[in-house]
Amino acid sequence: MASMEREFLEWLRPRLPGHPQVIVGCGDDAAVLASSPTARFVVTTDALTEGVDFRLAVDSPERIGRKALAVNLSDLAAMGASPVAAFVSLVLPRANAAELARQLLHGMLPLAREFKIAIAGGDTNTWDGPLVVNVMAIGESPRRGPLLRSGGQPGDWIIATGRFGGSLLGRQFDFTPRVAAAAELADRFDIHAAIDVSDGLSLDLSRLAQASRCGAELDLAAIPIAPAAYVRSVSPGDLRTPLEHALADGEDFELLFAVPPAVGPEFLAAAPADLELTRIGQLIREPGLWSGQPDGSRIPLPPRGYEHQGASGAAT
Amino acid sequence: MASMEREFLEWLRPRLPGHPQVIVGCGDDAAVLASSPTARFVVTTDALTEGVDFRLAVDSPERIGRKALAVNLSDLAAMGASPVAAFVSLVLPRANAAELARQLLHGMLPLAREFKIAIAGGDTNTWDGPLVVNVMAIGESPRRGPLLRSGGQPGDWIIATGRFGGSLLGRQFDFTPRVAAAAELADRFDIHAAIDVSDGLSLDLSRLAQASRCGAELDLAAIPIAPAAYVRSVSPGDLRTPLEHALADGEDFELLFAVPPAVGPEFLAAAPADLELTRIGQLIREPGLWSGQPDGSRIPLPPRGYEHQGASGAAT
Repeated sequence: MASMEREFLEWLRPRLPGHPQVIVGCGDDAAVLASSPTARFVVTTDALTEGVDFRLAVDSPERIGRKALAVNLSDLAAMGASPVAAFVSLVLPRANAAELARQLLHGMLPLAREFKIAIAGGDTNTWDGPLVVNVMAIGESPRRGPLLRSGGQPGDWIIATGRFGGSLLGRQFDFTPRVAAAAELADRFDIHAAIDVSDGLSLDLSRLAQASRCGAELDLAAIPIAPAAYVRSVSPGDLRTPLEHALADGEDFELLFAVPPAVGPEFLAAAPADLELTRIGQLIREPGLWSGQPDGSRIPLPPRGYEHQGASGAAT
Repeated sequence: MASMEREFLEWLRPRLPGHPQVIVGCGDDAAVLASSPTARFVVTTDALTEGVDFRLAVDSPERIGRKALAVNLSDLAAMGASPVAAFVSLVLPRANAAELARQLLHGMLPLAREFKIAIAGGDTNTWDGPLVVNVMAIGESPRRGPLLRSGGQPGDWIIATGRFGGSLLGRQFDFTPRVAAAAELADRFDIHAAIDVSDGLSLDLSRLAQASRCGAELDLAAIPIAPAAYVRSVSPGDLRTPLEHALADGEDFELLFAVPPAVGPEFLAAAPADLELTRIGQLIREPGLWSGQPDGSRIPLPPRGYEHQGASGAAT
């Protein structure tokens, strides 16, 4: 087994992307990161486990490895942070451990290069149990400070990236973490609060609203619905509308921003070429989640989503 | 299961130790850490897995939890770093997951308080597999810079903390990570290199020597041997001497420092009241590990230790 690990590390080390702020990467007792004089570090961790988050018999190790890094990048995005370094802890089933480890990294490394995050360390274990892929990611806070869930105020526009629903058809693995767009927007605009949608648009929005001691009113007609949500709603036995999928499916890994109304129009106009930004509602004084009606009244909207075993967000 | 997690987090949050540099801890998408203007962050991670690093049927969850944090503190110690924040990823067997999680934290929290490290986040998962406890720790580099493995020079004194061997009899769980002493020594003295002994004194010393492009000569008569090494050597079927246990058992989690000879005597005299420091040899130009003889000659000493499935040190 020791030889498995040596072999894997010898394969891995020359392939690891670096970062100017990673002073010492793999090979010592710990990694060393330099911070910019005024910046703060943002730290998140998420584990994917076999049988819960993926099935090795169905999902390729490359997609699993990619997703394990991507969900952490999505958490950095939700803070507006720029990626610096990731750390990868693998707990591998003994049979074929080295090959599996390489395949996982094959999925992870292109994403790390794309988003300029170093793989600066980790831990490799083998055992008789199923696969666990734990990734921890560190980023640098935007100049204006990290985007917390708790800074929203009544009247803030709720603005979403991308489209929602039906991620089970594949987007749950192949999504683009919004980390580059979020860091850019967070540097340019006064964003009050943000969250990434891992457990469902309505559930995660209600978490942001609650952390901000607000409620949220959604304009259901404005929710951007992913094509996959339509596909799912017409699949045999599916009783939900595309909108219901968009509100509750989760694993969209899109972002929700709470932006002051004065900033809203310019923020929407600043959408990068490859990313839709949509105003989907507003924060309100009254607690809870609501559907805004054409006549100005509100109907309660029960938050729905996947309260999964795992994700406590990144931070317990 | 979601209720398991909510219940556990509600129990946990008020108990979590903080740290002045942890600006945002649990409850958002990520934690936020402030760094001192000139400092660097030191980051390490280590996973403990059931059946490899512990057996739940034998080892109490409290001891497992304590050890999972302690091994990471030991890696910070090996860099001379002062603890700031730890992140705890649990992958829990479904049966009784909340109770097991609480017990693990019951073992971890007193150690966190003792060494003033915040628990600033993590991830809690349940599944049908065995227990995995992954901890990631972040510390702040000492003023003079982190203690790498690679800075040793021929002639440096090799100085060890504590005593070695027989850790399987209990010290492997209950050891004191040398993080406070190391941070203090690293701030006071010009230490060339350091490593913590997880896999065996002779094996980890040879890693330090190799990283420093040196060899190492041990004075075997000077090796501080733990009482447990004597106990093990007289246990039925054990064919090794106490010295052999000290050289190869591993999981001592003591530190080895390479210190320039001019600094050596003062360094030894600076030992904290509760910690032995012993000069056990020196770095030499000739590669390899050697036993120094009274007549000045050297005999090759094969590095022995536990090349376990897991530990790639902290950084892959």
